[in-house]
Amino acid sequence: MNQMTGKQSIEFQEPPHVISSASVVGPKEGEGPLGEWFDLIAPEADFGEQTWEEAESTMQSEALQTAIGKAKLLPSQVRYLFGGDLLAQLIATSFGSEETNTPLFGLYGACSTCGEALALASMTVAAGYADYAAALTSSHFGSAEKEFRFPQGYGNQRPLSATWTVTGSGAFVLAPKGGHVKVCGVTPGRIVDMGARDNMNMGACMAPAACDTIYQNLMDFNRQPGDYDKIITGDLGTIGQRILIDLLKEKGFDISQQHMDCGIEIYDSERQDTHAGGSGCGCAAVVLASMILPKIRKGVWKRVLFVPTGALLSKVSFNEGQTIPGIAHGVILEHC
Amino acid sequence: MNQMTGKQSIEFQEPPHVISSASVVGPKEGEGPLGEWFDLIAPEADFGEQTWEEAESTMQSEALQTAIGKAKLLPSQVRYLFGGDLLAQLIATSFGSEETNTPLFGLYGACSTCGEALALASMTVAAGYADYAAALTSSHFGSAEKEFRFPQGYGNQRPLSATWTVTGSGAFVLAPKGGHVKVCGVTPGRIVDMGARDNMNMGACMAPAACDTIYQNLMDFNRQPGDYDKIITGDLGTIGQRILIDLLKEKGFDISQQHMDCGIEIYDSERQDTHAGGSGCGCAAVVLASMILPKIRKGVWKRVLFVPTGALLSKVSFNEGQTIPGIAHGVILEHC
Repeated sequence: MNQMTGKQSIEFQEPPHVISSASVVGPKEGEGPLGEWFDLIAPEADFGEQTWEEAESTMQSEALQTAIGKAKLLPSQVRYLFGGDLLAQLIATSFGSEETNTPLFGLYGACSTCGEALALASMTVAAGYADYAAALTSSHFGSAEKEFRFPQGYGNQRPLSATWTVTGSGAFVLAPKGGHVKVCGVTPGRIVDMGARDNMNMGACMAPAACDTIYQNLMDFNRQPGDYDKIITGDLGTIGQRILIDLLKEKGFDISQQHMDCGIEIYDSERQDTHAGGSGCGCAAVVLASMILPKIRKGVWKRVLFVPTGALLSKVSFNEGQTIPGIAHGVILEHC
Repeated sequence: MNQMTGKQSIEFQEPPHVISSASVVGPKEGEGPLGEWFDLIAPEADFGEQTWEEAESTMQSEALQTAIGKAKLLPSQVRYLFGGDLLAQLIATSFGSEETNTPLFGLYGACSTCGEALALASMTVAAGYADYAAALTSSHFGSAEKEFRFPQGYGNQRPLSATWTVTGSGAFVLAPKGGHVKVCGVTPGRIVDMGARDNMNMGACMAPAACDTIYQNLMDFNRQPGDYDKIITGDLGTIGQRILIDLLKEKGFDISQQHMDCGIEIYDSERQDTHAGGSGCGCAAVVLASMILPKIRKGVWKRVLFVPTGALLSKVSFNEGQTIPGIAHGVILEHC
């Protein structure tokens, strides 16, 4: 029952299906170009809570319960949950997933966590370890700024290379069958460290990791970029996108026709003043739930390579002068 | 190919094997009762590095390379790595595992991470997704005090209920066959929140989660405590141990004959002034590598339930007045 393909990918013999998804976002995301497609847009970014962290947990809880409800399941039918967020010690997830009482695998892959969670949930369902498994990730502008950058009260200036952390949570339920989207394979990513150190230019930190994972996916499955209708990264933004396309050209692949980035799609950067794009664990997750999966369900796109990207820094590692390595996990989604 | 058993456990039809393990610790752990069994004891807790965080990464890197070497493998033969630590955004793991270039699933389950990593690595190998997978976790007294408590320079007093974070890293290589220890099943844990809020009494925060996972394991596999030679928790310490035994008695199971706690074993608390015991992701990992696995290999113990325990707090959640939920992941290890 060997399901390994190539150097680092898995090709499922019995592909699991994404049977439902949900997206919950804040008001800024609701005002963006994808506004009409989200399941729930909160009127205020605090989601009625006292702290940004609790707001993020509430958002996760809403997303998870909505996805489970759409799948017409009870929370107790979901056997395992794969979840994570950007905060230290995953507190958004710990408090956001507590209510459902589901056994939890806590994950951290920075903004790539949505890919990591989908990969592991798919691997779990495809192996017969669960009838239903869920993947859940989130980020919140308020909690992320506090975690990684400056207190918001400082009103610090953001350079044009900076991205805006998405306030949003996406949840997904996977099962052996059902619905019109299947996960045919995954390419878990390696850490790629090119020595970048600018935490206001995360696209540049993550693009080499995206390149590595996409390249490896094409090699492992013996494909060309044109074999995918779309190759969609998580949150490279406009600068990271240029770097990614250039890096892959150097390796012999031109993905300029197929490439799309969730961070570029989620905001109207001119009107919303978000600079290079959106970012965060929630960015790829809510764009997947609201826009990518519906297009695959309808067959507009037949095969998509979804590649959430993460920058592996903390404020401690940054302040100690460490580099910012990147990681990206690839998930192959197909219409069925 | 249904491998689900009971409510939340997995019973492997083809159990993967733990083919090698390695433990790397600091000087205090080397002076403890398990000193002679560790693979490497650093003369200084800084491992020759400039910061506690880099020291922890170096420790991880040593542990991983030692385990891979003992398995007579090249790093490139390990297909996937499941790793984590206690630090915000897993920086010890990001920088500690970078060198091997192995696709990484970053995990966070507080001090339960060793169980989470072993569970996922086992699930991955048993499903035919990898020939070799590795599990890697660490903690460091210096980096953990900085992350969770007070700057060490304050010289703050620790109450007798407090545990001492172990400076140590454990690494494990899993494969479909080889060696004399197999992973027969896993019981991934749920978050259990009894409302405890004392970060100087982590044993009390985690004991209810350990109780929940052990109880569920016994129910799912239809076993009695006596069916295990040992039931070994990660880092409950002396206070948590009493609570766990009492809670399970209330549920009809007496584990007082089988129970052992890695946190109690690793230090001589009288002589080493460690109070309630050792703790941290590294605690369960290095006790497993140095003492538990060798006893199973030799057949001294035929079947062990290994249950690393985690307390899901961050300094932000703690300072915002949140509770400290617990989680525990169970792994069944058998002699073969």
